[in-house]
Amino acid sequence: MNIILLSGGSGKRLWPLSNDVRSKQFIKIFRTKDGGYESMVQRVYRQIREADAEANITVATGKSQISAIHNQLGEKVAISAEPCRKDTFWAMALAAAHLKDIQGISPQESVVVCPVDPYVEKDYFMALKDLVSQAERGEANLVLLGIGAAYPSEKYGYIIPADDGDITAVKTFQEKPTAEKAREYIAQGGLWNGGVFACKLGYLLKKAQEQTDFTDYQDLYEKYDTLTNISFDYAVAEKETSIQVMRFPGQWKDLGTWNTLTEAMEEAVVGQGVMDEACRGVHIVNEMDVPILAMGLKNVVISASPEGILVADKGQSSYMKPFVDSMDNRIRFAEKSWGSYRVLDVEKGSMTIRVTLHAGHSMNYHAHKYRDEVWTVISGSGRTVVDGMEQKVERGDVITMSAGCRHTVIAETELKLIEVQIGEEISVEDKVKYDFC
Amino acid sequence: MNIILLSGGSGKRLWPLSNDVRSKQFIKIFRTKDGGYESMVQRVYRQIREADAEANITVATGKSQISAIHNQLGEKVAISAEPCRKDTFWAMALAAAHLKDIQGISPQESVVVCPVDPYVEKDYFMALKDLVSQAERGEANLVLLGIGAAYPSEKYGYIIPADDGDITAVKTFQEKPTAEKAREYIAQGGLWNGGVFACKLGYLLKKAQEQTDFTDYQDLYEKYDTLTNISFDYAVAEKETSIQVMRFPGQWKDLGTWNTLTEAMEEAVVGQGVMDEACRGVHIVNEMDVPILAMGLKNVVISASPEGILVADKGQSSYMKPFVDSMDNRIRFAEKSWGSYRVLDVEKGSMTIRVTLHAGHSMNYHAHKYRDEVWTVISGSGRTVVDGMEQKVERGDVITMSAGCRHTVIAETELKLIEVQIGEEISVEDKVKYDFC
Repeated sequence: MNIILLSGGSGKRLWPLSNDVRSKQFIKIFRTKDGGYESMVQRVYRQIREADAEANITVATGKSQISAIHNQLGEKVAISAEPCRKDTFWAMALAAAHLKDIQGISPQESVVVCPVDPYVEKDYFMALKDLVSQAERGEANLVLLGIGAAYPSEKYGYIIPADDGDITAVKTFQEKPTAEKAREYIAQGGLWNGGVFACKLGYLLKKAQEQTDFTDYQDLYEKYDTLTNISFDYAVAEKETSIQVMRFPGQWKDLGTWNTLTEAMEEAVVGQGVMDEACRGVHIVNEMDVPILAMGLKNVVISASPEGILVADKGQSSYMKPFVDSMDNRIRFAEKSWGSYRVLDVEKGSMTIRVTLHAGHSMNYHAHKYRDEVWTVISGSGRTVVDGMEQKVERGDVITMSAGCRHTVIAETELKLIEVQIGEEISVEDKVKYDFC
Repeated sequence: MNIILLSGGSGKRLWPLSNDVRSKQFIKIFRTKDGGYESMVQRVYRQIREADAEANITVATGKSQISAIHNQLGEKVAISAEPCRKDTFWAMALAAAHLKDIQGISPQESVVVCPVDPYVEKDYFMALKDLVSQAERGEANLVLLGIGAAYPSEKYGYIIPADDGDITAVKTFQEKPTAEKAREYIAQGGLWNGGVFACKLGYLLKKAQEQTDFTDYQDLYEKYDTLTNISFDYAVAEKETSIQVMRFPGQWKDLGTWNTLTEAMEEAVVGQGVMDEACRGVHIVNEMDVPILAMGLKNVVISASPEGILVADKGQSSYMKPFVDSMDNRIRFAEKSWGSYRVLDVEKGSMTIRVTLHAGHSMNYHAHKYRDEVWTVISGSGRTVVDGMEQKVERGDVITMSAGCRHTVIAETELKLIEVQIGEEISVEDKVKYDFC
């Protein structure tokens, strides 16, 4: 089974765990069998592998997520990364070109496309396999998965099928409706449109070529910034006449808000947290290393991260976006291809961060124009290069770098260091990369 | 007016702002006219000065609070510091000996004793002056302030007066009652016992000498650890027959819980915090440098500090003590006589802290047996002494100290530094002080 997982952009509705550089699908919140935690993307990736060990998985995403995806899924996962963000149609088209031109998949093969973050069980992946088989049969150009509407939601578009068969023609699409309209659609047998479909790889490519001329993946990639934002539903699904829908009656949840996310959590507390017996329906997700104490609360979610602290009535939490937009949103934690960093302290004229490098990885060789830096290695060992001079470093070693001085650190084991930045203007923009000497 | 302010021990009922080393009276939470914030102790000290510019104020407290008191009230305030904590009677007795033997106050003068943390207005301090005048008149050995009971509280002892005069004999004392009993006492004209009284200085000293032999302040100080814990009410007030009570009908609040503390706050938010329009009766006190977002909450207090995060129904918050006791209570922020420090990061084998020294102050000259340290000065200037070697330091300078090496820093201006501690066992106990060479 060829599968394209669409990994969407950053959202703020799960602040403070999601932010401008960290999307909700990377939050490690689901308990695994070995006692650890996995993220939405890790959960879905594992579930696909369990349903089909041979599945050919490609993640379609933006450049900013490449590091996080490699960190969470390993180095081997195929990634089709948009150079800039367009809407779903072009992300799918670029991934389709990646499958054909980079991976060498035949346009005659079928492919299933689905979002990376539904909260589902094994039956969903079995349904995806059926969807692919149906696409291979070629009865229609496009086969959608229609999700049994659990309630008259105003958040999803609806697919109205021609009849009540398991696989049937699509009669019509309906935009996100009012609750009243939604009840009407459901009475007519309407299904949620979860953005899941299967088709021949060649079909996707043909649809893309109808919109713009391109020869192959590389060509499409290069002209990507000239493309017009357009969604797959608008560009293709709503215009296609040879289209079927397959009914999926199983569990399908979109964990896009704290309200829905906490429903899917097996444990009320992730991280350090204590609640008294008077708490009801309270969830704590704490990424800080200080304890949270909750007392006498009802239906409240509490989440703390280096970005901030949310305390919200669960229902009310879905309206958080304007508040989060209005806040100071300096990034205080980021995953990088080489590891991660966390801001510990911000003062006028200085900033202190903790840097963690994975074994065998290194930062870019770089310099800063307006700040000096001091590194103190607190664990692990490796090598630093400062203006071309290489030296071994280990726990306790101190390296000072003046503004303008080129530097990097190469981790032999996992290596952690405290970096003190000193300068009048401290900014992530103040960075010049150099080729390694 | 001679006044002894009793500054009580650490309490956990205002966690995470109060902890084992930081008592509630030092939390800066009340808005001042100049736009800043003042603590309970600063507020009361200022109010006394406004009521009586000539007041002779002595703070009776424990050793651990000396730094915080000097930081908040200045270097000149008189402090009578118990070498170890006994109950109220001995704290008062030691302070009385301090007034007589260190400050040279005549035993014939009167003194008023009161807790450092009532939330009161100007009329209270006027009442204290009246209380002192009444003690000077000598109609009784002891004159208590009886606080008009605002409600049938179970938290206070009650003073039952002989009649309903403004100043009258005490008929009897009652221990903290049930609410029902409290209503009975109030019906009998009962007043709250807020631990406020006036008497001759010599009376207090005589009562102390009846309990134990001592010649003067120094002698009492030296035998302090052999004394038996005993409260003033039990040792003196309840046995005294020449005793009056003066009625105080004004505002008097004991801000010992989040519920009462937030009632006294003029602003709903102290520190970085945002709430939506659906919040009612919500208070945010945030000492962290990340934002708090509150949505859809009713009668909730949220407080965040380097020690932890509290989210509690206001009524429920008074039951927090056992939960706080059960948590990891490593100290992450402390005021010192020379400034303060804050823990930024704790890893296995290392800890990173930010140290702030006040201008003109220095740490003790000290060494650690089991850890190395690295200082990076991030603002200000001063001098470091490392194994006797003195050098000027300023922003950007780095000083490394191996285990065993003696060191200190002397701040010329306010000076901040990042200290990285590296060692297998990092503990506040690992410190040897030396005389400055």
